[in-house]
Amino acid sequence: MPTVIAVDAMGSDRAPKPEVEGAILAARQHDIHVLLIGPEAEVRAELRLHSSAPLEQLQVVHASEVIGMNEKAAHAVRAKRDSTLRVGLRLVRDGKAAGFITAGNTGAAMATAKMVLGALPGVDRPALAAVFPTAQGTASIMLDVGANVDSKPHNLEQWAVMGDIYARAIFGVEHPRVGLLSIGEEEAKGNELTRAAHQLLKQLPLQFVGNVEGRDLYNGNVEVIVCDGFIGNVALKVSEGLVETVGYILKETLRSTITRQVGFLLSRRAFEEFKKRLDYSEYGGAPLLGLKGVCIVSHGSSNAHALKNAIRTAAEFANANINAAIARGLSSARSQSAGDGNH
Amino acid sequence: MPTVIAVDAMGSDRAPKPEVEGAILAARQHDIHVLLIGPEAEVRAELRLHSSAPLEQLQVVHASEVIGMNEKAAHAVRAKRDSTLRVGLRLVRDGKAAGFITAGNTGAAMATAKMVLGALPGVDRPALAAVFPTAQGTASIMLDVGANVDSKPHNLEQWAVMGDIYARAIFGVEHPRVGLLSIGEEEAKGNELTRAAHQLLKQLPLQFVGNVEGRDLYNGNVEVIVCDGFIGNVALKVSEGLVETVGYILKETLRSTITRQVGFLLSRRAFEEFKKRLDYSEYGGAPLLGLKGVCIVSHGSSNAHALKNAIRTAAEFANANINAAIARGLSSARSQSAGDGNH
Repeated sequence: MPTVIAVDAMGSDRAPKPEVEGAILAARQHDIHVLLIGPEAEVRAELRLHSSAPLEQLQVVHASEVIGMNEKAAHAVRAKRDSTLRVGLRLVRDGKAAGFITAGNTGAAMATAKMVLGALPGVDRPALAAVFPTAQGTASIMLDVGANVDSKPHNLEQWAVMGDIYARAIFGVEHPRVGLLSIGEEEAKGNELTRAAHQLLKQLPLQFVGNVEGRDLYNGNVEVIVCDGFIGNVALKVSEGLVETVGYILKETLRSTITRQVGFLLSRRAFEEFKKRLDYSEYGGAPLLGLKGVCIVSHGSSNAHALKNAIRTAAEFANANINAAIARGLSSARSQSAGDGNH
Repeated sequence: MPTVIAVDAMGSDRAPKPEVEGAILAARQHDIHVLLIGPEAEVRAELRLHSSAPLEQLQVVHASEVIGMNEKAAHAVRAKRDSTLRVGLRLVRDGKAAGFITAGNTGAAMATAKMVLGALPGVDRPALAAVFPTAQGTASIMLDVGANVDSKPHNLEQWAVMGDIYARAIFGVEHPRVGLLSIGEEEAKGNELTRAAHQLLKQLPLQFVGNVEGRDLYNGNVEVIVCDGFIGNVALKVSEGLVETVGYILKETLRSTITRQVGFLLSRRAFEEFKKRLDYSEYGGAPLLGLKGVCIVSHGSSNAHALKNAIRTAAEFANANINAAIARGLSSARSQSAGDGNH
């Protein structure tokens, strides 16, 4: 039986075009059935532009409202009761879809997912995970990258367990190395949050390598990096800004002479490749981990290819039963620390 | 009269060679007199290797102890009472040098500077400021980048005033735009610290542009970015790691064919140029702002050129009377908010 994935057809900057094309690609290339969520007439009109679409694998589910990129999440989620986010996530909750993806408003997606799906047992706050490319060609997973600010030590503890399971289930890493983002490798370095979280992470039944620094995000020394969502979001945005600036400066410096232009074209290609890898939508979107259901958030600028990857990732998450594994992992972490407490 | 700058001769990874060479360059190129602080025999031996050194502008001041890069700052500062850091900063305190620079242990430098020089009136915590290159060729100043964690809103308020004065006095920016690093532009976005700091920064008599995001570090939209030292340090280290990785990937991708090698050599040059600009020692080191005296910290990997720049920057800081300007700025900010409170 094909996996069924619900897709917010109205999320991206150029919706519904990339969503519909991404759904067609996913249906063709993978054994996936896609439910396209949005204003029925508009989505059907886009679908009709693709005469060879595998219509038997695509279905439109009507939702009359769209939450815009710049709408305040809290208000929009309450006010728009028939939003694509709410309709899509209800399909997941009711077992009619195995997962949901959106390239829309991240804050609204998180708020709606928490409300409609709820958190897994043992999870106090779901976290958004992003994947970064490393110099070694591997991937490093950072969480949280923006779903939570002012986190508590036990939040970071739970995210360590989630990140470990994500690296195993989706990237096939047998013993993921898990690091705590801080500003010095020694245990005592960092701030109040990291010092307290360090003590909790040490007790977990996973390969905790201790504090790591900002540069470890890209060197492949760890597979999972845990941090507060404010820090993770700054790390993500600083990276995006720096890559844009490096690209701009390479271009400016290299286009001044003909010979340099040759260099530019070649290095530009390599650089664009890296830039694409940095754009997390290329990795199939950022999963919101710790929910009773699969929910993936993609960049607003996603194209059909990125959305196809996100749809495939959602199916992989569903088929790997990652949520059940997280619930089990958290429960065994809890009982192990309880056991340790009895010594 | 030449400006006198005290230089820790034993700070950098290859000390005292780059320090002595940097001092010779600074003495030759600028009207600066350098006091080289370190074990006298060792420093003199290095000096003797440079037969044409302008010895009338260079003087060795003996200090018997060196604090290593990996020593715990708090302990080393207490235990080593004749360290190069303490001897050098005492010369500043006693008016025998206009400023001090070190490429050694940042934590130990900060602790010693706070102890020996003390903070300016109105400054609760001095901050380390780093300079980032932008796509527009301008510089953006970020503070704090690691001297303080778990900062309070009034710390960020004071750093905004210091950053504003730094941008004016050293970079000649007439009306620096000052931003608060957060994870969304709206006033209400961010964490507890940024929301409270936002209200304080709004009241300051400077051009506060509101919240900025990680990407604004490199796009030249602001001249000053204020944040907690944990966040600033992560931003700095993420940047260093990403630039290393981009350099590595460009190299790997481009060296596979002869034509690509041409491209590589050309783009490599442009990239190395940017990398050098990112390395803050190229800008003359990171000043510790808010002290009763000038203290500049350079990278441990600094070469003679970078140390010469740091010595020149220290002289510029001293001659611009930046500390007096900071004290005045903080006092006028305080009286203005007090006045506002009386309406």
